[in-house]
Amino acid sequence: MIDFAGSAAIHALGGFAALAAALFIGPRLGRFNSDGKVNIVSPSNLPLASVGVFILWFGWFGFNAGSTLSATNESIGHIAVTTMLASAAGCAACILFTLLRYQKADPPMVINGALAGLVGITAGCAFVSDAAAILIGAVSGVVMVLASEWLEGRKVDDPVGAFAVHGISGVIGTLAVGLFAMPGTAAETGLFYGGGWHLLGVQALGVSVVAIWGFSLTWGVLKLIQLYKPVRVTADEELVGLDVSIHGVAAYNQEHGFVNVDKLRGNE
Amino acid sequence: MIDFAGSAAIHALGGFAALAAALFIGPRLGRFNSDGKVNIVSPSNLPLASVGVFILWFGWFGFNAGSTLSATNESIGHIAVTTMLASAAGCAACILFTLLRYQKADPPMVINGALAGLVGITAGCAFVSDAAAILIGAVSGVVMVLASEWLEGRKVDDPVGAFAVHGISGVIGTLAVGLFAMPGTAAETGLFYGGGWHLLGVQALGVSVVAIWGFSLTWGVLKLIQLYKPVRVTADEELVGLDVSIHGVAAYNQEHGFVNVDKLRGNE
Amino acid sequence: MIDFAGSAAIHALGGFAALAAALFIGPRLGRFNSDGKVNIVSPSNLPLASVGVFILWFGWFGFNAGSTLSATNESIGHIAVTTMLASAAGCAACILFTLLRYQKADPPMVINGALAGLVGITAGCAFVSDAAAILIGAVSGVVMVLASEWLEGRKVDDPVGAFAVHGISGVIGTLAVGLFAMPGTAAETGLFYGGGWHLLGVQALGVSVVAIWGFSLTWGVLKLIQLYKPVRVTADEELVGLDVSIHGVAAYNQEHGFVNVDKLRGNE
Repeated sequence: MIDFAGSAAIHALGGFAALAAALFIGPRLGRFNSDGKVNIVSPSNLPLASVGVFILWFGWFGFNAGSTLSATNESIGHIAVTTMLASAAGCAACILFTLLRYQKADPPMVINGALAGLVGITAGCAFVSDAAAILIGAVSGVVMVLASEWLEGRKVDDPVGAFAVHGISGVIGTLAVGLFAMPGTAAETGLFYGGGWHLLGVQALGVSVVAIWGFSLTWGVLKLIQLYKPVRVTADEELVGLDVSIHGVAAYNQEHGFVNVDKLRGNE
Repeated sequence: MIDFAGSAAIHALGGFAALAAALFIGPRLGRFNSDGKVNIVSPSNLPLASVGVFILWFGWFGFNAGSTLSATNESIGHIAVTTMLASAAGCAACILFTLLRYQKADPPMVINGALAGLVGITAGCAFVSDAAAILIGAVSGVVMVLASEWLEGRKVDDPVGAFAVHGISGVIGTLAVGLFAMPGTAAETGLFYGGGWHLLGVQALGVSVVAIWGFSLTWGVLKLIQLYKPVRVTADEELVGLDVSIHGVAAYNQEHGFVNVDKLRGNE
Repeated sequence: MIDFAGSAAIHALGGFAALAAALFIGPRLGRFNSDGKVNIVSPSNLPLASVGVFILWFGWFGFNAGSTLSATNESIGHIAVTTMLASAAGCAACILFTLLRYQKADPPMVINGALAGLVGITAGCAFVSDAAAILIGAVSGVVMVLASEWLEGRKVDDPVGAFAVHGISGVIGTLAVGLFAMPGTAAETGLFYGGGWHLLGVQALGVSVVAIWGFSLTWGVLKLIQLYKPVRVTADEELVGLDVSIHGVAAYNQEHGFVNVDKLRGNE
């Protein structure tokens, strides 16, 4: 199985673990109406979320190129280029696709589209051509939107799109190596370069095992934890916000007021 | 013409394109009163704007030093130093100049001053001395403040200072190469090092062509677009904010409420 | 004295200078009640403060590893690892310690814990083992919490924890070199590797001189400034916020209103 920087080992694993947790814990209060209507949580600070995506995007060059394990490896240039192309393609595809689908370029989808492209190229960044990188990124971005909608339709609440971004794009990226791996770059050659179906089969088997492992282990651990303590906060704690109820501090405080320290630290 | 990393090719071009767009589209509603008074839009999130400038500042080291096209080029050290000196000088000059001029160090001007210094050094970062870099940065910063005021006085609304920062500092930086290029670094030597007026003339001609090209092409394209659809949103869309009217999501939502998904996606 | 990237020369110096300033200027209005109760200022934007810590954290790899003064120095890998381990240990130790002490993982303490770990490892990053780096980071994080409380108990207001983070962890990190410096890495060997008490004594003497110098120079300079102008704003300026009273612009403006430019620039 070929997975250069971890589309399967990191992203598919984490995405399916997140799906298990989303199913186990259930949707946030108010996410789905009893009459079947779906509600969206408007992000508290979209510019900051975008900065976060740009920081991740920047870090990904270290992550993918650094997975060569040597700073003098000559494939670093190619890896950086495929990483950039796939993320830009994921982002651009989401702009176009949400424009067509919702008549508006949807900013939370667009920033997740860049991440979907990055996740998709992680397995094959050293092995696929520039054109394949663009295709992988664009497909990852569009399928991420569809997967988000599919989850919503099933009343599964995946607050930051962990499954749609990391799980689905992780699977796409792992399979794409079986299609696009160029001769002389990896141990085996992909289907479109005359390597036959073998590598694709190995990739499909590998990512399935990873996904099932991530999903079932997380489900099991949550079951185990639940024997001892609840895995979900109470409705009151949820409605006041976890920043206040779990951490004792509001994320934003634009009144700049003072708060008594004993109350925060539970001394009274 | 000598333009190492693009004071003319990138910044003057973009800045004059932005000026064309600012003139063509016109000022935001409320920016200028009918009695001639000038209003300023207070930034929605100044700390985040400052973080953005720091990220740009950091990226500029890659941009200028990376324009050597080789990671082993020995001028990278010198380029990084002139880049740092010019931006720090632009920032410091804006603090002092706005303190003198407005009795207050003006934070939006100060962060733009760092950018003006960076734009100014982009053409000559590999060719000028450390002292020249400080001078170029400081002049770029101060002239940027004056250019912003000059635009305001002419009722031109340049929301993020694109012309004042990129256009004007791009011209200054391109001309500065004609003055400060040191012997043995570039193909020709600047006026202050005995190279005569020839290089300065070439730089002036070059940046004029770039500026006229950027301005007129943008004006033409906007004219063309306007034949088919308006280039400016309606007053209602502008007053509610483009985040809501164009993208269907508010940039900030600190009430953490839920919004029906059909309304956002235009299904009802 | 051994201080690789400046636990003493930068952080202890700055931290003790900050302590002098905090004592000289006095606590913010409302920080301490007259009945002895302590109040905490809830941060205006905790997610942005966390982004700031992550940017510092990232920059520290350049700071510590770059203090080798050569990009081909082979100790860079070890320095990056000890830097990461100490900061992660400082962060984790603060999560656990504040959970035990306040029943809640305190986010402002946790992000300062990562910084405390970074400050603590700065002196010894090239000379100590991975295990020592974890220990230095964890001790720095926990002592930082205790130092913050100790200052609060003495009615000293240290708004961003400059003394607790930089002063105290700077001292810990400098002393730690005297304990953990491995043979063959530095000019002398630490106590736990058979080097005896000499290096520890030198480190203690050195950091004491630095701390006294930083504290007294700052106190003296503030005394000098006070002869000519007050070093603290008036109560009115403080209550309206220094963004408005000193810089003429509000840090946050989520009403997106327009403000007359003459008022801001003091022309009327």
